[in-house]
Amino acid sequence: MTGSLVIAGLGPGAEGMVTPEVSEALDGATDVIGYIPYVSRIPPRHGLRLHPSDNRVELDRARHALELAAKGNRAVVVSSGDPGVFAMASAVFEAVESGPAPWRDLDIRVLPGITAMLAAAAAAGAPLGHDFCAINLSDNLKPFDLVLRRVHLALEADFAMAFYNPRSASRPHQFASVLDLLKARAESGRLMIFARAVSTPLQEIHVVPLREARAEMADMRTVVILGSSATRQVGRFVYTPRRA
Amino acid sequence: MTGSLVIAGLGPGAEGMVTPEVSEALDGATDVIGYIPYVSRIPPRHGLRLHPSDNRVELDRARHALELAAKGNRAVVVSSGDPGVFAMASAVFEAVESGPAPWRDLDIRVLPGITAMLAAAAAAGAPLGHDFCAINLSDNLKPFDLVLRRVHLALEADFAMAFYNPRSASRPHQFASVLDLLKARAESGRLMIFARAVSTPLQEIHVVPLREARAEMADMRTVVILGSSATRQVGRFVYTPRRA
Repeated sequence: MTGSLVIAGLGPGAEGMVTPEVSEALDGATDVIGYIPYVSRIPPRHGLRLHPSDNRVELDRARHALELAAKGNRAVVVSSGDPGVFAMASAVFEAVESGPAPWRDLDIRVLPGITAMLAAAAAAGAPLGHDFCAINLSDNLKPFDLVLRRVHLALEADFAMAFYNPRSASRPHQFASVLDLLKARAESGRLMIFARAVSTPLQEIHVVPLREARAEMADMRTVVILGSSATRQVGRFVYTPRRA
Repeated sequence: MTGSLVIAGLGPGAEGMVTPEVSEALDGATDVIGYIPYVSRIPPRHGLRLHPSDNRVELDRARHALELAAKGNRAVVVSSGDPGVFAMASAVFEAVESGPAPWRDLDIRVLPGITAMLAAAAAAGAPLGHDFCAINLSDNLKPFDLVLRRVHLALEADFAMAFYNPRSASRPHQFASVLDLLKARAESGRLMIFARAVSTPLQEIHVVPLREARAEMADMRTVVILGSSATRQVGRFVYTPRRA
């Protein structure tokens, strides 16, 4: 049997946002590997081994999946959202690069998914309707100065911005620093969206002007969107016009 | 009957990338409105009226869809990719803002889709695996100087970049200007991906170092991704490490 490795995006939570090609890959898998809450979304069945693992062991998880594929298994690594956006795809390619040479010839495919910022944007209207950027606020893997530098330049460029991993128990202060920077440099009425548990029954969408934004409004399950200078509200919707 | 308006993303082309919630909305629609090639993806059926329209009439199309919803129809506006990324969602909210007051109370929902850059990134590996931005290179609705300014600042921030609408018959020169800027400011070996007709049978993915990129490599159906300074190749894959 020829093994394969699929890195699949489960979307932000709703089953209605899981693409058919991802469902098909899961139906054909012998092994599903991933962070515990994502693997728990996969229904058990005969012939399928589930391999849930803890957070922050992305490289170990990637190597395990590559070993299974090299043995001839049909392994699927699951990510929430899109696996190519602050998720498992880069970790798998890092593991390929540092691993045995034959791993480079494995049948590896990435299946995209609905990433959190796009589901959050859709729930709010169309705040990413013109030029925008996506920034991971976690400094687990990069200096926080680089985060602040990117936010500063993104303001100069007048991008709308999506912030992933804004805040966690182990990193309570960074998002507050980002908010300080934004408040010092952007108009106080700039629209900000806090989108929590997007597309799940626990979804909460809060829209506030920048001056009212507080760090405590974000947690691990929140994606934060900051509008550009042109982003506006019409009725209950937030959108960025196409001329921005 | 209460009308509704859904703005739905069909993804980049493959039926396997159309989300179940979008398929469900289409199954329940009385009217499907959109640009000709996107409406042509919807199979005709009894009770469904198809309203294909030409390019560059986005506001007229949005108003038409809102009128149908206001009359009590179940209208679905289709976009390729994600409707919130350089597509129809912003046009609909612009039409709501300039339209009759009751339009603000209509049942309007945006359903996200797999946008071209994420499908292109998945096909190539994970080039958007760390902080990135998305820039629409068309100057139909904004001054081209603003495009160049954003590209310049995005280089300063060392974002990976996705360029939408890089080049069309009516705008042959802008992408060449962007390439000139990139070649003057970024390393000549920076990786660039030209992804055409992503996820369709005509898909072509070309990876070249920046010094070999030429404007003619892009057309209307191409999304272009420029790596950050950290983006690299392993085997046939291009990816950006998580530490970038």
